[in-house]
Amino acid sequence: MAMMAPWAAMAATPDKPNIIFFLVDDYGWSETSLPFGNDIYANNRKFHTPNMERLASMGTMFTNAYACPVSTPTRTSLMTGMNATKMGITNFCSLFKDRPSDAIGGAPGTTNPNESDIFANAEWNHNAFCPVQFQGDTDIYGLNHTLYATPMVELLRDAGYYTIHVGKAHWAPAGTPGANPLNMGFMVQIAGSGNGHPKSYQPEDYFGNIPGEGDFSSVQNMAQYYDSKIHLNEALTLEAMKALETPIKRNEPFYLYMSHYSVHTPIQRDNRFIQQYLDAGLDENAARYASMVESMDKSLGDILDYMEHKGIADNTIVIFYSDNGGHCLAYDKGGEPHTQNLPLREGKGSCYEGGIRVPMMVYWPGKVAPDTRINTPVINEDFFPSILEMAGISEYDVHQHIDGQSFVKLAQRGSQLAAEAKKAGKIKTMADANAFILPASETGIDPERELVFHYPHQYRVEDQDDIDFLSALRRGDWKLVYRMHTGDLELYNLREDIGERNNVAAANPKLTADMAKSLGSKLRSWNASMPTVRATGLPVAMPDEVPVPTQSKKKSKKK
Amino acid sequence: MAMMAPWAAMAATPDKPNIIFFLVDDYGWSETSLPFGNDIYANNRKFHTPNMERLASMGTMFTNAYACPVSTPTRTSLMTGMNATKMGITNFCSLFKDRPSDAIGGAPGTTNPNESDIFANAEWNHNAFCPVQFQGDTDIYGLNHTLYATPMVELLRDAGYYTIHVGKAHWAPAGTPGANPLNMGFMVQIAGSGNGHPKSYQPEDYFGNIPGEGDFSSVQNMAQYYDSKIHLNEALTLEAMKALETPIKRNEPFYLYMSHYSVHTPIQRDNRFIQQYLDAGLDENAARYASMVESMDKSLGDILDYMEHKGIADNTIVIFYSDNGGHCLAYDKGGEPHTQNLPLREGKGSCYEGGIRVPMMVYWPGKVAPDTRINTPVINEDFFPSILEMAGISEYDVHQHIDGQSFVKLAQRGSQLAAEAKKAGKIKTMADANAFILPASETGIDPERELVFHYPHQYRVEDQDDIDFLSALRRGDWKLVYRMHTGDLELYNLREDIGERNNVAAANPKLTADMAKSLGSKLRSWNASMPTVRATGLPVAMPDEVPVPTQSKKKSKKK
Repeated sequence: MAMMAPWAAMAATPDKPNIIFFLVDDYGWSETSLPFGNDIYANNRKFHTPNMERLASMGTMFTNAYACPVSTPTRTSLMTGMNATKMGITNFCSLFKDRPSDAIGGAPGTTNPNESDIFANAEWNHNAFCPVQFQGDTDIYGLNHTLYATPMVELLRDAGYYTIHVGKAHWAPAGTPGANPLNMGFMVQIAGSGNGHPKSYQPEDYFGNIPGEGDFSSVQNMAQYYDSKIHLNEALTLEAMKALETPIKRNEPFYLYMSHYSVHTPIQRDNRFIQQYLDAGLDENAARYASMVESMDKSLGDILDYMEHKGIADNTIVIFYSDNGGHCLAYDKGGEPHTQNLPLREGKGSCYEGGIRVPMMVYWPGKVAPDTRINTPVINEDFFPSILEMAGISEYDVHQHIDGQSFVKLAQRGSQLAAEAKKAGKIKTMADANAFILPASETGIDPERELVFHYPHQYRVEDQDDIDFLSALRRGDWKLVYRMHTGDLELYNLREDIGERNNVAAANPKLTADMAKSLGSKLRSWNASMPTVRATGLPVAMPDEVPVPTQSKKKSKKK
Repeated sequence: MAMMAPWAAMAATPDKPNIIFFLVDDYGWSETSLPFGNDIYANNRKFHTPNMERLASMGTMFTNAYACPVSTPTRTSLMTGMNATKMGITNFCSLFKDRPSDAIGGAPGTTNPNESDIFANAEWNHNAFCPVQFQGDTDIYGLNHTLYATPMVELLRDAGYYTIHVGKAHWAPAGTPGANPLNMGFMVQIAGSGNGHPKSYQPEDYFGNIPGEGDFSSVQNMAQYYDSKIHLNEALTLEAMKALETPIKRNEPFYLYMSHYSVHTPIQRDNRFIQQYLDAGLDENAARYASMVESMDKSLGDILDYMEHKGIADNTIVIFYSDNGGHCLAYDKGGEPHTQNLPLREGKGSCYEGGIRVPMMVYWPGKVAPDTRINTPVINEDFFPSILEMAGISEYDVHQHIDGQSFVKLAQRGSQLAAEAKKAGKIKTMADANAFILPASETGIDPERELVFHYPHQYRVEDQDDIDFLSALRRGDWKLVYRMHTGDLELYNLREDIGERNNVAAANPKLTADMAKSLGSKLRSWNASMPTVRATGLPVAMPDEVPVPTQSKKKSKKK
């Protein structure tokens, strides 16, 4: 055996399962026919996602899964296992280096200032994430405002995984090594770059590559499908399945990062699915968006079919996740702005639940009990240690300190406990399942673990009080929201009030103060980026430096 | 052993050596400081290619290596092992499907008619090459004028090679599967598409991706290097070396298709190398082109260094080749048009030697004798069976009939014979080496084997009698040229007249007639595309249907 190449031990085995990370962009927690809440909401009736329902019946749903309010912080955290605020990557990166998206934005030659009149944006790592192997190449790239770390996929590749990137990357802007998925440990790379959304999903638009009209959002590597009638979602799925042929033939374990551009803007129809929504009475905008959602869901179904067809479903993990909440300012999504993620409050960019709570599922045959729900909160930085544990990689040497906790035990033991409780008749409804507390002693993750969200930026040019300049802390059922614009602290009980309508801070001043202190300590310890008040030139106060509301001086409640 | 994964046998071994195919674009046979001829010509003094000299000292030079007159026929033939004329791919493909480059040209929305006033271009497979796996997908791609075949790299990949594409692809236009290197059997693909040249080599131009200025020639996947001061040639080399890390770490054999865009137009300086040429008195244009050539040579040197540094030089084959002769109509190359490949006549697009004779070398440690020359002619379709033989792949099932012959025995035994002759004092000069005939009984390839060249197109809008609408046949020392415009047959003795200045057809009417008959038979048997005479609507006569010149009615000799 001493002479054997390492490959002999590298075929996909129960110890080295295949892993498909199915990541959707800007996809809201309620925008699916698979209800993650206690009730079936209007959105759950509007959208049609049969393959998400199918995956849920095969695996477990995480009903309290979180991401950052915008894309790049989540995506870089997935790659580094670090807390996004600690990384200093708190906003989406722009298309080109040295152009902070909140101050300049866009590609060279364009201006799109997102700065607030009231606050100057904080300094942050606007050049986002760069693999640490390039740290010395300052003469080549001249990078500053950059986080250097070891990308997770490098560890998977070096452990023998066949690593495939498909779709959106958005770890860093053009002009930096982080813009190149091949620098992240991917062997195969399809259509990924520094762009945060596609210029077009449509083959007749050449996915944004019409000569003289292209820009840094034009989708690369897809020339095969120009004018083919194949929508980008389907084209990416076809490319992913073709790429999987090699590791399957070679009997190597694979990691497929299936990172759809959908359902990010531009909101464009998928002709395969739109008619039923028009027939159901949705307006053109809403129907277009619903067809995008179903198009994404079809991709999931095609991949599940492929797994079965290839006989690998028994040894393949599928993780479903979204990089942030659904857009709530996209007028062309249909519906009224700020309401598009109901029952959740607000959407992308916001630290209210609409911006950060996302759909998540884990399918893991033989390990995770099917048709179950887990309500212990998990967050983006947990994926790094989780995926490495799934891949049987227990020891690794990385540049960064990992902040996340593995949810492997939670997914396995938690789903088993939920299945047992269901069998024993203790869980009968979605509400029962969502209320079923899993003890840390069994799952390894404390359901009261504090999760921090921090967005010291203005998301859009127009001030949006419920979206811009917010921080938040979740602890068990409680959620503290800090509104930097006004210096207000708000407290919500998410178990009773998932829509964050009833601010109970004044009624719970001690808890509010305690959580504000905890949030402030964490932000300080991470050297969190904070905006500056233009009028004074001073940084915005920390959440534990503002007054805690009391009953007597309670402000008028936000509607 | 029965339980072992196939990988155990797949590490690079003497039976499965690594293979680097280093392909240069539009690179002329004389545009190097490494002389392939009998003498040192002016071009050999003008250019500086120390790493080609280095490779020649490590391996063997093929002084009579041929390619097609333009890019796509050579490149598709490399991939299929078929004769380009038989494939019906006789011209470069345009940027978009259904737009023959000789009739419409360019991307949608542009017009660039290359049609001749005298001849209408032949029907040909202007949608070029499509991997046979897509033959049934007519509803998706709606392809016609397409050659379906099994791509060579698929066989390498399926035999366990780690296959890497870097740089120019140009097997087929956008809108077809052949535009995607991943469909050719490549696992890693960097910067390849349907484009035939880069919009720019310069990082400050974003390699042609400046927003609003990009088109189908913009180079993809290189965003990392925008504004980095890294020239495209160096960027591609860096990407290739990064990609090689994985198979080297995994102990897998690799196939690297290192396909430089250089030295195709646009003629742009590489700042690392230009000054010495300006100092030497070259004008700006000539210096720019010389810097591109040296930039390409530097890439070769970097890869040779890398091989040594990684300890893989002992088990890695390097093949050096160009896809057609040097450009002779590029005014910005410096020098006078039509003279840029001297001593060879004409250049790219032409069936005179300047268009088809290309530099070629093979390094194969322990198998090919170093510092030797082989003068047996070889041609593009020979690479398919040769590379598969190098990779130890002896049996394969492909869609097409392979026309080429493996030159493995020729390279091995031929170089050994040459080395012995040198040692024995029989070869003292370059001319001796170039005249040293290798018998087919020893090498497997008949030095008198007939090679056909066929270009039934107009290369440029302006009629260029010495470039457009030519066919040619090489047989041993003899070369027949058929000029369709005038119906003239010309005969040259290449041993005495490498520049094709002395037409000896009239002095050798029997040989001329015999070679014309052979050329005509071959073109007929391949159903060769032929232009149509506009005045008559009839196809151009075959070479054996026109009068053979005789002494009595000899025409005035072409100067």
